[in-house]
Amino acid sequence: MKNVYEIKVRWGDTDPAAIVFYPNFYRWMDEAAHEWFEAAGFPITKLQKEKNIIVPLLEAFCQFKTPLVHEDRVSVHSTVTEVRSKTFKIEHQFFKGDKLAAEGYERRAWTSTAGGGPTAVPIPDDMREKMQAPM
Amino acid sequence: MKNVYEIKVRWGDTDPAAIVFYPNFYRWMDEAAHEWFEAAGFPITKLQKEKNIIVPLLEAFCQFKTPLVHEDRVSVHSTVTEVRSKTFKIEHQFFKGDKLAAEGYERRAWTSTAGGGPTAVPIPDDMREKMQAPM
Amino acid sequence: MKNVYEIKVRWGDTDPAAIVFYPNFYRWMDEAAHEWFEAAGFPITKLQKEKNIIVPLLEAFCQFKTPLVHEDRVSVHSTVTEVRSKTFKIEHQFFKGDKLAAEGYERRAWTSTAGGGPTAVPIPDDMREKMQAPM
Amino acid sequence: MKNVYEIKVRWGDTDPAAIVFYPNFYRWMDEAAHEWFEAAGFPITKLQKEKNIIVPLLEAFCQFKTPLVHEDRVSVHSTVTEVRSKTFKIEHQFFKGDKLAAEGYERRAWTSTAGGGPTAVPIPDDMREKMQAPM
Repeated sequence: MKNVYEIKVRWGDTDPAAIVFYPNFYRWMDEAAHEWFEAAGFPITKLQKEKNIIVPLLEAFCQFKTPLVHEDRVSVHSTVTEVRSKTFKIEHQFFKGDKLAAEGYERRAWTSTAGGGPTAVPIPDDMREKMQAPM
Repeated sequence: MKNVYEIKVRWGDTDPAAIVFYPNFYRWMDEAAHEWFEAAGFPITKLQKEKNIIVPLLEAFCQFKTPLVHEDRVSVHSTVTEVRSKTFKIEHQFFKGDKLAAEGYERRAWTSTAGGGPTAVPIPDDMREKMQAPM
Repeated sequence: MKNVYEIKVRWGDTDPAAIVFYPNFYRWMDEAAHEWFEAAGFPITKLQKEKNIIVPLLEAFCQFKTPLVHEDRVSVHSTVTEVRSKTFKIEHQFFKGDKLAAEGYERRAWTSTAGGGPTAVPIPDDMREKMQAPM
Repeated sequence: MKNVYEIKVRWGDTDPAAIVFYPNFYRWMDEAAHEWFEAAGFPITKLQKEKNIIVPLLEAFCQFKTPLVHEDRVSVHSTVTEVRSKTFKIEHQFFKGDKLAAEGYERRAWTSTAGGGPTAVPIPDDMREKMQAPM
């Protein structure tokens, strides 16, 4: 399943070079991941409250291709591209019009807080199906 | 009691005009308030864990006098200037060398989370004494 | 003229108390001010490029009434409430449904960068009319 | 050459799970890279003013091993581990005491703004020597 999340570059997102300060791309990847889960019918807040599931980060990567500037409108395309037993990888592509401005991914762990500390647990089938659904 | 907290303006703190993006002054006031409590012997984390006390914001104000730029070193002088029964006001002055770059304040409530929801409670005497101690 | 700017509270906007970290309200006021100018037909980027006008902050204030939490949807109502010769005050009210969660203002200076350094200059009549237009 | 940059986790750096919101690690990597350049005798502000050199990001990666919490003191160890003709890779390790909490890298391009637009140019010998100097 693919989700598209629309953002607008804000004044405070940019730096003295007048381009986006790069950590913001990770902030937007986090927001886009949350939007993906909401669009899939599993808002993260609900997962947490009802199933004690959280999805902490294992790693994140991003490549920067074209700088973004103040007031740019950007579409973030998010797709889960890999589903393992207890972890998954979600890829995010940042488009400014037709142009790919940046692309990256997050690897996250399906984690239960039901026992003592947080523990990675198998991704349930209904979630796995959503993750692997065609676009 | 007065505490001085030293900061350095970072690349990501500034905007396309190459000066500090103004919400960062409030972030620094929050940090400076935490530093004041730590210097006073009451780290906020400890207050929370041991006494179920938190100090949420009621209001915050800041006046901007001279822009700060990347790599500026700034001293934030913090003083509690008003102590009421359940609330207090902490003032923060931002100095770049001798020059006052900005000044503002936060008003916070002494709040217990011991009962059901958070409730403002009287500031205890030992805390009040620290707040009113001469510089 | 009044403008309404819609936001959604993000995971990264909140703190360990699970409520919005307060400097974010000022970030949203800055965004809402930019949206006001865009809605008024004077995008700040255009003002800067075509007229060498910037609108730096003189002061900002906010009062926090009800905490906002992750995934809250918030409407920021922005109105210019005071227009002086070279400065103006824009007020922002944060509504979560019918409830006023916070309210604040920014005072900004109409500033030209056309000469040497930035200098406050009179607000032109067409801008003044927009600012004073009924809602 | 290795540089160590000391940070303290702030209240606003953490999220509702009470651990550091992950984009902050990239903000700290950016700060640590700036600190590395300053320690090497080439502050980025000076490079820019005197030589029209900037060091934009090509990509950045981070692996998260142990969550960091409010008031943690962290040492960021930064080393340039790869120097190509026009690009370099700087690695950052986040230590909380002896424990490696996270590690990542940034790949940046040595870029001149002297001509028309920004262009990657060869890293000069004096810089290259600093980058490759033993710790």
